[in-house]
Amino acid sequence: MGTDSTMAPDKVVIVGATGLVGTQLVKVLERLPLDVESLSLLAGHRSAGRSVSFRGRHCVVEKFDPSHFKGAKWVFFGGKDGLSEEFCPIAASEGAWVIDNSSVFRLRENFPLVVPEINMHAIKGASGIIANPNCSTIQLAVALAPIRDKFGLKRVIVSTYQSASGAGGEYLEQLENDTRVVLDGNEKGVGRDSPAFNLLPAIGPLEKEGRYGEEYKLENELRKILEMPDLPVVATAVRVPTRYSHGESVVIETESAMDSETARVLWRSAPGMAVLDGPDSTSFPTPRTATGTDPVWVGRIRSAGIFTNDLAFWIVADNLLKGAALNAVQIAVALSERERRK
Amino acid sequence: MGTDSTMAPDKVVIVGATGLVGTQLVKVLERLPLDVESLSLLAGHRSAGRSVSFRGRHCVVEKFDPSHFKGAKWVFFGGKDGLSEEFCPIAASEGAWVIDNSSVFRLRENFPLVVPEINMHAIKGASGIIANPNCSTIQLAVALAPIRDKFGLKRVIVSTYQSASGAGGEYLEQLENDTRVVLDGNEKGVGRDSPAFNLLPAIGPLEKEGRYGEEYKLENELRKILEMPDLPVVATAVRVPTRYSHGESVVIETESAMDSETARVLWRSAPGMAVLDGPDSTSFPTPRTATGTDPVWVGRIRSAGIFTNDLAFWIVADNLLKGAALNAVQIAVALSERERRK
Repeated sequence: MGTDSTMAPDKVVIVGATGLVGTQLVKVLERLPLDVESLSLLAGHRSAGRSVSFRGRHCVVEKFDPSHFKGAKWVFFGGKDGLSEEFCPIAASEGAWVIDNSSVFRLRENFPLVVPEINMHAIKGASGIIANPNCSTIQLAVALAPIRDKFGLKRVIVSTYQSASGAGGEYLEQLENDTRVVLDGNEKGVGRDSPAFNLLPAIGPLEKEGRYGEEYKLENELRKILEMPDLPVVATAVRVPTRYSHGESVVIETESAMDSETARVLWRSAPGMAVLDGPDSTSFPTPRTATGTDPVWVGRIRSAGIFTNDLAFWIVADNLLKGAALNAVQIAVALSERERRK
Repeated sequence: MGTDSTMAPDKVVIVGATGLVGTQLVKVLERLPLDVESLSLLAGHRSAGRSVSFRGRHCVVEKFDPSHFKGAKWVFFGGKDGLSEEFCPIAASEGAWVIDNSSVFRLRENFPLVVPEINMHAIKGASGIIANPNCSTIQLAVALAPIRDKFGLKRVIVSTYQSASGAGGEYLEQLENDTRVVLDGNEKGVGRDSPAFNLLPAIGPLEKEGRYGEEYKLENELRKILEMPDLPVVATAVRVPTRYSHGESVVIETESAMDSETARVLWRSAPGMAVLDGPDSTSFPTPRTATGTDPVWVGRIRSAGIFTNDLAFWIVADNLLKGAALNAVQIAVALSERERRK
């Protein structure tokens, strides 16, 4: 129940509740301080009827229908572009805050693209639809925002190492199944573009200027979130055969001088960041460090030695948590705290 | 038999003949045009007695002993630093050309570090020991040399995606075994630093300035091969859960203007390169493209958009072939052609 008894009951709807992101949305809602009076879990007809546990109760997944939006305070969309394009505006017109994991609204003007640690102010005057950024963008933005504030950002070069779960549950299953086939000695039994023991340097459709979708999102969503429309940034996005969490190798040029120790100190107190860095060979974050945890992990912090002022570092975050479900629920929590303060 | 009957018989010795690189050395020697009158395969006592086929004959692996260097024209060392440090000079003192895959001599003055497509001239006046560069360095150097020659290189930023075979046969087995354990649902059954479904952003021991061994090699061997001792280059080296071939995401700043099409044309006629690039989603090189093949494959060629003159691209090469055995035998072939011309 809401803390203010005059408020409408806090009805929460999750569209795409049985996908990888939807499943994490339920788990994150269980532990974050958001009032949830009722929870509607919606999915395609194949998942309808499934039972999901939430805060000690059982919720039955229902077949998606926009009539469920009525009276909702929060509607989370799991991330299918077509569904979001059509139904986010309908949910918003019912008066709900819509937090959308698809890419549909992210780069559109007048739609806030939000990482709560960085730009909650962007929500001011929003129509009700808030875009949750792309997974690989969120972790990079969280790491770069404090650098921008303190040292000024001049240039960003990022190469990603993205896990199969970023492409959804079926792709994750394909990685696991194809890996078994190859381990059984049947290399020819999987396609040339199989993710098993492979690197695929092309994520999403080919967009403008030789960029694939993921790279286009990374470059342009980062500029929007950091409010630096002309920031020189180049991304290379690569699918790697991991299951969860995305890694990123980053080199930046800064306006003013900084060194690795300054960066460590800054990040240790930065919201949403965890530093794992040190002189011995096991003090660096890996997908095993990050998976199932909330922060953006940073390590391998060092001077790049290629610009007067620069830094090289490595970040890893759980793409389904901070990269998706956690960030989405954090947006709702921050909004709800703001309402309370009013 | 040598083409010139006055020459000494072309005796070839491989030290470490049963390791991953040694096995490839035998296979490459079978198909490259190097005269091989006799072949001595040397290894540790556990591998001694094993039979290896070579050009239709059977060779029995013998226990390593430096007495085998006597009368040898070519001695290839598979890559163990301790063994190379002690025995490469002995083999050279017997009059052999020694081509060493270890890192011992690579950065020492007066020892040539050679990629035949780029700097055979470095061999002039050599003592007899020629260092074969690090696997991830070779493929980057092959791609960058023609750019340096035609457009001038100002800055290099590289992130690697390195396969388990680069760390040797036992590590490759660990990847396969641990992957099976995780697929069987026993995630806790492997160590936190297991390569299975993981990314390890640290290869080799920690060296100076926050660089790990592989990064230090990449940055400094590249400068030596390209004869650009002050080239600003920063490398991040990451072990990824692939089996064969290394990928590299590269961004460069050039002295003069170039575009993606100019680069494609240049690389199409560059020695040792193969271009796989295009507008459809499957025209890019992956480890599956490169494994078992000789060239350095390049794709994802595009303007980076962060410097006045720049380029971003993706390269993949078989780390055991061009990254090790093939380059080593190519050095011998080039030397032998030079002798013939004299």
